Amino acid sequence: MPREHIFDEAEYERRVARTKERLRERDLDAIVVSDPANMNYLTGYDGWSFYVHQAVVVTPDRDEPIWIGRDMDGDGARATTHLAEESIRAYSDDHVQSPRDLHPMDYVAGVLEELDVADGRVGLEMDAAYFTAKSYTRLQGNLPDAEFEDATLLVGWLRIKKSDQELEYMRQAARISENAMQAGLDAAGEGVPEYEVASAIYQQLIDGTDEYGGDYPAIVPLMPSGDHTGTPHLTWTDRRYEDGDPVIIELSGCRHRYHSPLARTTFVGEPPTELQETADIVVEGLEAALDAAEPGVKCSAVEEAWRTTIEQYGLEKEDRIGYSMGLGYPPDWGEHTASIRPGDDTVLEENMTFHMIPGIWTDDIGMEISETFRVTSTGAETLAEFPRELFTA
Amino acid sequence: MPREHIFDEAEYERRVARTKERLRERDLDAIVVSDPANMNYLTGYDGWSFYVHQAVVVTPDRDEPIWIGRDMDGDGARATTHLAEESIRAYSDDHVQSPRDLHPMDYVAGVLEELDVADGRVGLEMDAAYFTAKSYTRLQGNLPDAEFEDATLLVGWLRIKKSDQELEYMRQAARISENAMQAGLDAAGEGVPEYEVASAIYQQLIDGTDEYGGDYPAIVPLMPSGDHTGTPHLTWTDRRYEDGDPVIIELSGCRHRYHSPLARTTFVGEPPTELQETADIVVEGLEAALDAAEPGVKCSAVEEAWRTTIEQYGLEKEDRIGYSMGLGYPPDWGEHTASIRPGDDTVLEENMTFHMIPGIWTDDIGMEISETFRVTSTGAETLAEFPRELFTA
Repeated sequence: MPREHIFDEAEYERRVARTKERLRERDLDAIVVSDPANMNYLTGYDGWSFYVHQAVVVTPDRDEPIWIGRDMDGDGARATTHLAEESIRAYSDDHVQSPRDLHPMDYVAGVLEELDVADGRVGLEMDAAYFTAKSYTRLQGNLPDAEFEDATLLVGWLRIKKSDQELEYMRQAARISENAMQAGLDAAGEGVPEYEVASAIYQQLIDGTDEYGGDYPAIVPLMPSGDHTGTPHLTWTDRRYEDGDPVIIELSGCRHRYHSPLARTTFVGEPPTELQETADIVVEGLEAALDAAEPGVKCSAVEEAWRTTIEQYGLEKEDRIGYSMGLGYPPDWGEHTASIRPGDDTVLEENMTFHMIPGIWTDDIGMEISETFRVTSTGAETLAEFPRELFTA
Repeated sequence: MPREHIFDEAEYERRVARTKERLRERDLDAIVVSDPANMNYLTGYDGWSFYVHQAVVVTPDRDEPIWIGRDMDGDGARATTHLAEESIRAYSDDHVQSPRDLHPMDYVAGVLEELDVADGRVGLEMDAAYFTAKSYTRLQGNLPDAEFEDATLLVGWLRIKKSDQELEYMRQAARISENAMQAGLDAAGEGVPEYEVASAIYQQLIDGTDEYGGDYPAIVPLMPSGDHTGTPHLTWTDRRYEDGDPVIIELSGCRHRYHSPLARTTFVGEPPTELQETADIVVEGLEAALDAAEPGVKCSAVEEAWRTTIEQYGLEKEDRIGYSMGLGYPPDWGEHTASIRPGDDTVLEENMTFHMIPGIWTDDIGMEISETFRVTSTGAETLAEFPRELFTA
């Protein structure tokens, strides 16, 4: 029995139709989609099953995509997708981490043969997490006459502009982000162990709002603190916060796999003047970049607005300051397409969504204040409403 | 400034020494380790940075491994590993999801050249999540004279027997699993939304115990319920539990990335006789399998003890019923080496650890009661102490 569907069938049909258009433009006879976010985008499939190999195959001619996964996950596909029974194919459990010479991609190759594309041009997501080197060599071995093409971002670029329903879920995720950030800031303080703050955040991330719950985010709350605010991807430990600790919290609410990330920085005790000044500069730069974002502007120009603002104060940041995002599974909520950085010529269009996170990391200290924004018809709209300032704990 | 270390330096030295032995046995000049759990095992590196490409390289001759990652994660390596400065190498941010023809594996290839193994035999974790097809083709392109060998499980097989300190962390994780399971069972009930139960579980997973906090588990709580208990990898929704719903909870506490998974099943209302009988059979089969586990016995014999027990009652289960596990990052806490299933000839040795999860999924209903166990000198010891029965909510 299917679960309540997250999108109506027509939305999936539009997504699949656009994928087929791209296949025709690139003269591809099929694409094997391995990224769980792309699998979800094309079929609605949702389950924590991406630790085994799975795929969605789209061809220009077949009406529906075909979902391929492990036998015990076939019912998950029946529960979460609109796909007809003949479009759900499950391989037997002896393919999983097999001590024998048997691999799930052998089964995928069989489906490609059945689809009559074994000697065709087949797109693969060559650089997607979970599409392993072995997956590739097994497909090559099974289908020696196929011509494989790198189509890593073919579906990703379709995802960059969001539909009204997608934006609704991202706005719902933003409400959860606000609640979880407030819970984290409220919990932080001198003598409190980092994990207690993480626990308060997590409870709120999943408890969501009064109206709806939250899904698990594709990235856990990132909480570098003290000496380690310069290392943005640390999580939490048993350490207790001390007077004088800066604490970064980067998190995202998640609703039906859609995210709206948010980062803020707090300080245990009285913040030093320099940190307060840095915060003011980050906010000024962030707002300059948000002001620069509108349809027709390149991603690189948005970064330039940030950089020229902070350079007035002698600050520099060499990394990218943002990326397109929305739907996602671990390890990432980013879409891996457009980045807000020098050299990225992507032109902004209405309903693209980005997480702009212009962290400043000096030798001593790190500071992050971020916003998720949607490109509107005339500018940019942030999804969360949360004060942009340095907090104290 | 380094964080407090999780293991003393000697433990990492032993792990690296054993890795070097295996390299020599297999006549490999280097291994490029991509699995985040293996990277952690060899160096202690811990951070949510595996959404970009990274690696640890070990050669038979170089004293330390070399950690390779993104520039902004270099300080994370300094904070969490014992590695010397010259063993930490960071690639510039323009390698990340680059619109130009630039890939992190180009940088890794440079390190391999520097290590003088560009024309050597290099082991790769061909089927590890995050070692993508593109990672492989970029290494091939950069190092045309290298001979690449599949070494996916080389480090994994070293991990299968746990040290005393590893077992201590798994026991700590088991305490967290017990607390989180109790929180979940207490929260479940008629009219309660699934996400509220997930929230209660998550809060406890991270809050841990009175003595220490919990880390994020490599797999989120899995909570199929109602019509969907046959689909083991579904998570939670806004649906409210109804009278007559079976509810499976599979979760794991995590301590310093070490897990101790636990699954139980509860029932909203008065369970039907058939379900109660099935629970009794599952427990009997689970206990028969635990009784069969001891040093010298094959994994396949443990599965046989389960299967012959449940077959007396006319039940069958075709999937594997357990797997070696411990240290892990999303998407999996399993080690992908030994499985408890027919045909797996792995011989049990003391201090191997497994999650035995012999789920029964019939057309109508699913039931899971699992245990994590350690092989002792004479038998098997379960890490968690939690009643083995069908609960009611």
